[in-house]
Amino acid sequence: MVGHVTREDVLAMDASDPLSACRERFHIPDGLIYLDGNSLGPLPKRTVKHLQMVVTDHWGESLIGSWNDHDWMTLPARIGAEIALLLGAGADEVIACDSTSINIYKLVHAALAARADRSTLLVEAAGFPTDRYLVESVCEQAGGQSVRTTERSKIIDRMDESTALIVLTHVDYRTGHMLDMTEVNAAARSVGALVLWDLSHSAGAVPLDLGDCGADLAVGCGYKYLNGGPGAPAFLYVRKELQNSLQTPLPGWFGHAQPFAFEQNYVPAAGIDRFLCGTPPILAMTALESGVETFQCVELPALFAKSRALCELYIGLMEQRCSKFGFALASPREAWQRGSQVSFAHEHSYAICQALIERGVVGDFRAPDILRMGFAPLYTRYIDVWDAVETLHDVMQTTLWQEERFQTRKAVT
Amino acid sequence: MVGHVTREDVLAMDASDPLSACRERFHIPDGLIYLDGNSLGPLPKRTVKHLQMVVTDHWGESLIGSWNDHDWMTLPARIGAEIALLLGAGADEVIACDSTSINIYKLVHAALAARADRSTLLVEAAGFPTDRYLVESVCEQAGGQSVRTTERSKIIDRMDESTALIVLTHVDYRTGHMLDMTEVNAAARSVGALVLWDLSHSAGAVPLDLGDCGADLAVGCGYKYLNGGPGAPAFLYVRKELQNSLQTPLPGWFGHAQPFAFEQNYVPAAGIDRFLCGTPPILAMTALESGVETFQCVELPALFAKSRALCELYIGLMEQRCSKFGFALASPREAWQRGSQVSFAHEHSYAICQALIERGVVGDFRAPDILRMGFAPLYTRYIDVWDAVETLHDVMQTTLWQEERFQTRKAVT
Repeated sequence: MVGHVTREDVLAMDASDPLSACRERFHIPDGLIYLDGNSLGPLPKRTVKHLQMVVTDHWGESLIGSWNDHDWMTLPARIGAEIALLLGAGADEVIACDSTSINIYKLVHAALAARADRSTLLVEAAGFPTDRYLVESVCEQAGGQSVRTTERSKIIDRMDESTALIVLTHVDYRTGHMLDMTEVNAAARSVGALVLWDLSHSAGAVPLDLGDCGADLAVGCGYKYLNGGPGAPAFLYVRKELQNSLQTPLPGWFGHAQPFAFEQNYVPAAGIDRFLCGTPPILAMTALESGVETFQCVELPALFAKSRALCELYIGLMEQRCSKFGFALASPREAWQRGSQVSFAHEHSYAICQALIERGVVGDFRAPDILRMGFAPLYTRYIDVWDAVETLHDVMQTTLWQEERFQTRKAVT
Repeated sequence: MVGHVTREDVLAMDASDPLSACRERFHIPDGLIYLDGNSLGPLPKRTVKHLQMVVTDHWGESLIGSWNDHDWMTLPARIGAEIALLLGAGADEVIACDSTSINIYKLVHAALAARADRSTLLVEAAGFPTDRYLVESVCEQAGGQSVRTTERSKIIDRMDESTALIVLTHVDYRTGHMLDMTEVNAAARSVGALVLWDLSHSAGAVPLDLGDCGADLAVGCGYKYLNGGPGAPAFLYVRKELQNSLQTPLPGWFGHAQPFAFEQNYVPAAGIDRFLCGTPPILAMTALESGVETFQCVELPALFAKSRALCELYIGLMEQRCSKFGFALASPREAWQRGSQVSFAHEHSYAICQALIERGVVGDFRAPDILRMGFAPLYTRYIDVWDAVETLHDVMQTTLWQEERFQTRKAVT
């Protein structure tokens, strides 16, 4: 962003946006500027009809027969194959299942068992808390391996020959800081450690090439950029060569080599299917399938370029319009170090976020002082960024300081 | 069932059925006799509209705000409270979450940790296989406790002071054999062991009183008699007094005392909420909510009486019409020892089951030789039982023996 940007400049960016038609794939409420697709992606229009068809035609008419007649059995793998395209992974390396939390548990457990001769697990000190809860739970249960925490910036320094596994969030949920996967994976490989990546804030938003960057293990969320609906099933990636050497701690019938043989001994399926557990939630899977389909025919390089351009525009406009209000950029300034979100720190972020929501600009507050805006490139327009900053300017300029709520908040801070 | 039963007798049973109107709550395809609601309950009519409302009005219009505005946060607990009514449990003793498999894992793990001074876990030798896979996985991981298997009939004899936990299916998935929970719980308590009941084939189909019968722990399925849709979330019960002494091995943010404080240390929520893990799948939960609502205003004693009457009618009609075809009753003859299903063994059950499905009578085959019919009392009519037996008679009498498929199957058996 160079020089002063006008509203006309921004409208011109939308006019020349090769992805502008993708917005039509979503239901975005009139007048709403939705910059929280990194918490919950909006409703894809196709989901309404697709889900209705599965409910009324498949479940309603074919009942139990749908497991075969409508391919419910293979839905987790088929969705996994679609997600794999966004991850730069093989179609047989990704599967949709359970929640991100449970998938983390599975892979942490499996990885620690596979590196039982090593004594430590390395996790970032301030990552998404659930990831750490689960890591600590697995280590407590197993007893043999201990958790070491580190800052994101010191991961490579802290790994060594004692490290069994490193658990990292690719894009930090508060700051949007993005790690260099290739660099971390190479360093881990050089000491013989495995790496588990949480891609919840990455998949569908930033370039990923799990194959090329040497990723071992990953999980991610279905309800953020993948638009799979609230609490959508998550996904799980295991590098092909590793799959048959890892054992899930959650052996359920859908991960069995022959689910309907009802054998009393567990024999894991070959390949990625072994990481399934119970019966897949078909209705939730159906919505996730439609969510992932919103990426169909999208040129991914153009998508990721737009993500960067939206973030850059927001930072530029914040500097242009809101510099006097005390916001401090809490995200990396360099695009290559950042996901598809931008966070600013401000002591009154909570009240500011609420005031924005009341004016139809939905972002997110993350304690203690982060105002977080997500820029999902499939449906966010450049003019949305302009309007969001103008609204924020108005909030700061005219309204906020008079509000009782704000004063109260200020008093307790 | 005394004496010869006529079609008119059966029609009279429907005419005087106090629950006959409940069938209208479901979409049952025209002409289909669906006796497989114990595999997948049919579509409740209300689910179509309820799910559409949550998708288009809540997710579509309120987006992330729905977690508060539309009470998504409390949905697992609210559904749990509804299910509790069918279980004879307290509203704060049941929660809807994850899959049956994963809930078994949570509670087996928690129970074994709570009885770490005891050396064995007792599980039935021929229960639903997933239950056993998970039990064995937990014991292998923990290392300190070993699995002992036993026949259902010898459970009480086999438990002793070394027993930490007993894992049992209340109603066997093949034979429908139902254990006496009060008797088993009392015996377990007398030796200081906990019991985990799998109620997948019980909830909504047979009388349960988890409070009165002294049950400690239970799980169950949402997609069978609860009509929650394919792969619906499951439920989990923990006796009130035990809740705060048990720790989930799957600590996720929704089980945290303050999910949105994003604390780095896991502090379990008080009560049943601590057994939640990741973000609840709201669309699947919504369908489960509608499924459970099909029991609203239903007199449970009348429901369970109808279940027994349907089963009795089926057995009686099978004896009356099909006795010469070599079927052997594989379910208990006594109603109080049986769930809401009846199984017959026949060497050609697989082919017979397929032939019935082709004629619009949907039951289930379970290896090696079981023809299983489920009689969900909310929507099954007495005349359906009559027609099913007549169809079976016709299949046996006229068609089956000429079919090539049958001959082939016979050859390999």
